[in-house]
Amino acid sequence: MKTPLSRRPAGAFALLAAIGLLAAAAPQAPESILGFTPESSAAQRDVEARYDQALSAENLRNWMEYIVSKPIYVGSPHNKETADWMVEQFRSWGYEAELERYDVLFPTPRIRELEMLSPRSYKAQLREPALAEDRTSGITENRLPPYNAYSADGEVEAELVYVNYGIPADYEELERRGIDVRGKIVIARYGGSWRGIKPKVAHENGAIGAILYSDPRDDGYYQGDTYPEGAFRQEHGVQRGSVLDMPQYPGDPLTPGYGATQDAERLDRMEAPTIMKIPVLPVSWGDAKPLLEAMGGPVAPAAWRGALPLTYHLGPGPARVRIKLEFDWTITPAYNVVAKIRGAEFPDEWVVRGNHRDGWAMGAADPTSGMVALMEEARSIGQLMETGWRPRRSIVYAGWDAEEPALLGSTEWAEHHAADLKEHAVVYINTDGNNRGFLGMGGSHSLEAMINGVARDVTDPQTGVSVFERLRAARAVRGDSEALERADLRISPLGSGSDYTPFLQHLGLPSLNLNFGGEGGGGSYHSQYDSFDHYTRFGDPGFEYGVALAKVAGRTTLRMANADVLPYRFGGLADNVKRYLEEVEKLAEELRRRTERENRLIEADAYQLAADPTRTYVPPEAKEPVPYLNFAPVRNAVALLDKAAGEYDAAVAQALASGDAGPSQAAMESLNNRLRRIEQLLTDERGLPKRPWFKHQIYAPGFYTGYGVKTLPGIREAIEQREWDLVPVQMERLAATILRAATAMEEATLLMD
Amino acid sequence: MKTPLSRRPAGAFALLAAIGLLAAAAPQAPESILGFTPESSAAQRDVEARYDQALSAENLRNWMEYIVSKPIYVGSPHNKETADWMVEQFRSWGYEAELERYDVLFPTPRIRELEMLSPRSYKAQLREPALAEDRTSGITENRLPPYNAYSADGEVEAELVYVNYGIPADYEELERRGIDVRGKIVIARYGGSWRGIKPKVAHENGAIGAILYSDPRDDGYYQGDTYPEGAFRQEHGVQRGSVLDMPQYPGDPLTPGYGATQDAERLDRMEAPTIMKIPVLPVSWGDAKPLLEAMGGPVAPAAWRGALPLTYHLGPGPARVRIKLEFDWTITPAYNVVAKIRGAEFPDEWVVRGNHRDGWAMGAADPTSGMVALMEEARSIGQLMETGWRPRRSIVYAGWDAEEPALLGSTEWAEHHAADLKEHAVVYINTDGNNRGFLGMGGSHSLEAMINGVARDVTDPQTGVSVFERLRAARAVRGDSEALERADLRISPLGSGSDYTPFLQHLGLPSLNLNFGGEGGGGSYHSQYDSFDHYTRFGDPGFEYGVALAKVAGRTTLRMANADVLPYRFGGLADNVKRYLEEVEKLAEELRRRTERENRLIEADAYQLAADPTRTYVPPEAKEPVPYLNFAPVRNAVALLDKAAGEYDAAVAQALASGDAGPSQAAMESLNNRLRRIEQLLTDERGLPKRPWFKHQIYAPGFYTGYGVKTLPGIREAIEQREWDLVPVQMERLAATILRAATAMEEATLLMD
Repeated sequence: MKTPLSRRPAGAFALLAAIGLLAAAAPQAPESILGFTPESSAAQRDVEARYDQALSAENLRNWMEYIVSKPIYVGSPHNKETADWMVEQFRSWGYEAELERYDVLFPTPRIRELEMLSPRSYKAQLREPALAEDRTSGITENRLPPYNAYSADGEVEAELVYVNYGIPADYEELERRGIDVRGKIVIARYGGSWRGIKPKVAHENGAIGAILYSDPRDDGYYQGDTYPEGAFRQEHGVQRGSVLDMPQYPGDPLTPGYGATQDAERLDRMEAPTIMKIPVLPVSWGDAKPLLEAMGGPVAPAAWRGALPLTYHLGPGPARVRIKLEFDWTITPAYNVVAKIRGAEFPDEWVVRGNHRDGWAMGAADPTSGMVALMEEARSIGQLMETGWRPRRSIVYAGWDAEEPALLGSTEWAEHHAADLKEHAVVYINTDGNNRGFLGMGGSHSLEAMINGVARDVTDPQTGVSVFERLRAARAVRGDSEALERADLRISPLGSGSDYTPFLQHLGLPSLNLNFGGEGGGGSYHSQYDSFDHYTRFGDPGFEYGVALAKVAGRTTLRMANADVLPYRFGGLADNVKRYLEEVEKLAEELRRRTERENRLIEADAYQLAADPTRTYVPPEAKEPVPYLNFAPVRNAVALLDKAAGEYDAAVAQALASGDAGPSQAAMESLNNRLRRIEQLLTDERGLPKRPWFKHQIYAPGFYTGYGVKTLPGIREAIEQREWDLVPVQMERLAATILRAATAMEEATLLMD
Repeated sequence: MKTPLSRRPAGAFALLAAIGLLAAAAPQAPESILGFTPESSAAQRDVEARYDQALSAENLRNWMEYIVSKPIYVGSPHNKETADWMVEQFRSWGYEAELERYDVLFPTPRIRELEMLSPRSYKAQLREPALAEDRTSGITENRLPPYNAYSADGEVEAELVYVNYGIPADYEELERRGIDVRGKIVIARYGGSWRGIKPKVAHENGAIGAILYSDPRDDGYYQGDTYPEGAFRQEHGVQRGSVLDMPQYPGDPLTPGYGATQDAERLDRMEAPTIMKIPVLPVSWGDAKPLLEAMGGPVAPAAWRGALPLTYHLGPGPARVRIKLEFDWTITPAYNVVAKIRGAEFPDEWVVRGNHRDGWAMGAADPTSGMVALMEEARSIGQLMETGWRPRRSIVYAGWDAEEPALLGSTEWAEHHAADLKEHAVVYINTDGNNRGFLGMGGSHSLEAMINGVARDVTDPQTGVSVFERLRAARAVRGDSEALERADLRISPLGSGSDYTPFLQHLGLPSLNLNFGGEGGGGSYHSQYDSFDHYTRFGDPGFEYGVALAKVAGRTTLRMANADVLPYRFGGLADNVKRYLEEVEKLAEELRRRTERENRLIEADAYQLAADPTRTYVPPEAKEPVPYLNFAPVRNAVALLDKAAGEYDAAVAQALASGDAGPSQAAMESLNNRLRRIEQLLTDERGLPKRPWFKHQIYAPGFYTGYGVKTLPGIREAIEQREWDLVPVQMERLAATILRAATAMEEATLLMD
């Protein structure tokens, strides 16, 4: 591959001069907004001030109260009612709005039974009782009981084994103790991974059923006072949720990679690879306690013990349980609300901004707290439009349906409109649940500088400093040594868990995920008690952080829509990719050292000698030594990326700082067109090993973490899983990917020459 | 100070040649015992084989059953009965045995009341019920109820504050939350420090009373199945124990530094500085739970939360409690059993070997499991003596009384016989509770090589490898990277918690503390359930580890008694002191970095900004920066120590390996006399800051840890407590101390010239 990296951007002014942005000797204006000239910054600030002015916490409260008055899961009557109502709202604000329907497989439970047969009998309640302090907790009409969507149908009976969080490392611990889950039912606590990993790994290890429960240690009285006295999960609160194998691919399990339109070809359900193979049922700790109390066998390792007042044992048995589950496997219409404003200057460049609108039960925090912020953003922009203002680029607001079961609404829409999105989208901006606290910023590192700029310009409602300052303080106090040093706060790489996944990881669109949180108090997640009453007592009582989110996400939307040059900066990308590479190199080194050490201990019989002979202990087997890996191609690519990114960033900053007049539309489009494809260059059409749907080479949800991100996933997971043959292939692919992006940055720089 | 360090030990053979140990070109005998020539090693091995042969687990079982049939606290009738019986036993084995009596202040409870007055009323039970499975649990005669010895008398009433472990760092956390314990009663969980620290620090912070309880997280069902099903502490089990301020000085509070003989001068009780100033009462978690449930205020920090099924709150209140305590402050006779064999060759060199014989209740594990091992050692040695064998040095066996209240028996004896002990003792070998598992070796580092040699020669009863091998395996598995590399396993420096303290830290005698443990399962500690039934189910059912302890401690005794050259080696001492110095330097650096970081965060207002404004938060105040400290004098001293130690070790090893005939008694005594004073040179008569009783400059119990050791305590604690003025003084004192010892080593080396 030939790259023009040896050429320096001799005159970064050329393009901007050509397009009329350049004024002689304009001083660097520190108050300029990223991507804007000093002059257009001033105009933008005026728009933003008027935008802020129009925001009303009262709207958020009223809308939430209406939306969460009845259950809003996909297919529920109130889900459709609120979708229609949202369309009307958007239209009343001046948007072209409509519902886009996809027909998706959505199982709902018909039979849910769990009983302990021995040593005592216990029939699990599997229900969340009404509370006087929560007005919607007693709703029974159109309510979904606690269940795990995409569990298998079936009836199984077996002894229980406690598997902690149910991740692969936990099964290694069981193996050391001679405990095998084959033919058993596992009971796993929530936490430590996304829930779908637990039954997947249980099945891989031979279990025939799985019970998931919320231990009060992770999610209950150990954390704080329980509902309704406090925010935290009480004895009967259950975490519902999907167990579809989303790390393989999210969205409709029957239409992988394409939109689930009415006439789309569908897989046979029995062949859909992402549907769980064993029955899985979530329970409260109230239902789990009798089961755990009845277990024998070895005492669980210290790190496995929860906060129930009992000694945690591993089993197997003597607790023996029966699970019976049957679902209606219905094809259900999912309705995305899609509302558009046509851009005044670049209508074919789209800013896409979404939040899901379905919830498992009432869905106040998740997702309505974010959805009402999005609506208020849209309303305020509508108010700007009433004064004749128009965004330069097109804006698409979306209220996704059916996020909870498997990111269905967003994924099907993204798959269905894939070509258009790759052609037109300049960013996808996601929000979801929101509550009181600190700004959360995740996304493409090319947007790090931009979103930091936004965070500097929004005031924290509680402290009066910027949300940037407050987050920086929190990070510094938590021990992040660079927080007070580095100009920008790092943003988190994205794994999965909300609707950004199809846009970022499947299509390669520059994406952001934004929220506030950390002070709201958890405990209502995916339960009947995620209600207006809970949220307005513990989440964000004054909806001040809803308004703050509207300021952050709305500003982001408006800046992406109006920027002269799209505000991607690649220095942050290069800096973070370098760190990820260092992490992976360290991972390999540590794995090598650990393997050597463990093999040596095995050889010295040390594990056996250190074990208590009165207990079963099976020492580990020696592992293949970790080979030395060739990181050079990726290192070289990252070095080029670093250089190209620095040159682009310097060139564009200089050009913008010097410009003061409006650009020529054609020149601007030419640079911007090139820029917004750079994130797509970070994908590889072949996707990741074992999961071709995931195409991004920098960010992916972990195959065995589910939500938790794996950066540089191709090489990182190959090393973690000791698939040494895979490493060189993935290494080469990653290097090529990074080089493509670096080359595109150089070309963009040259455009300014 | 002038030291002869420039002289190299040109011919290490001289002394040994002079005393007849040297044979030409004798090859290094790897099987030689440390301190013995090859020939005397062979004889010693023969003695040890006969010694092992005579040991009987059955004796240990029978003696324990008799001793723990009734309570054995100091002053109890059965305590005296068993003392008399032990004297008879020792006499029957050929020892000169007698009781040595000291009259010590020993408070026992007259009134113990604890009740919650609001928000609900609860009267604490403060008793441990009888269990059908434990034959002595129902004993009521001459039984001491749960209490903390040396608590103040008094009646106090106040709101409760939960203070976690009640150590200084915990009060800083409370301060951050605006919580003040002045005028309050604190409730602290056991753990994190020795128990006496908790009321001491509570008092320093202004509290007027303290409740100590056993949280099931640290000591109960969280750890394992509870008694009688399992070994662990059950709902009503209470940890009794002393709260005398032993880090100031242990022993009789009324006779600091001298023996509490009948006619000794005594302090007025009200002036005794070590007696606690506020009422303190220990309770079970069964009694603590209603109190903790009734508390409000902020939720406790995550690390403070125990395993009770409740949300831990800090208070203050609304729980309001009243404590009333009254004690009989009786002067009580404590009877040490002291049994002696006169050494055949060096009767004025004493090997002192002790274990305490009093317990809080039945005292099966603590201390009888160790005491019966000691008795069996003595009996077996007695059997050797029946064949005409005699130890070369004198052996003193001791059964200390009144260890539990404050190391009373051993301390008063050590203080009383201080001059003789400093003149004659070559070692103090301590044991205490013992159970199944791994060898524990603590003590003077000059004995590290010797005790490692013993550990290599004793077989682990469960695995058949040496107890050295098994311990090494356990350390390697736990991640101790040097365990498989270093020739000797490091031994632990000693803090406090058993009877070695007066010998090591007050007198400067080379000391060891030995035990097995780690697989026995805890939970009976200082409760009524530390019984024969508990011990024989969970401690060491077959008394195999009791016999193993007798083999280890007996071998140690015999080798110290018979060695040609006393088996001190100083390379291990130098190596460990170097490590401690590195630790302290790192401590200062980390404190400096942390102070800088915290001051910077304070200046940036980061703590305040990171805090939840809906909760009280008081940011810390800036601290004086940590000055750069002059470690050079100590470093130089350690470098000399390292050199002198290496030269001595090499010289003596070479000399012994080459020798094959008996030494001349006079020459031997001359070298040994010098050697055994080296540990005493590590003391400083002025003692440690604020506690002159503690004279050892290398090892001390922490002023704020109580049992936990602080090595190089003078400089370490001055730095920890930010007493910068103290540092240079302590640094100089430590350097001088180390130089004295190094010089003595050089002189010993020269004796072999």
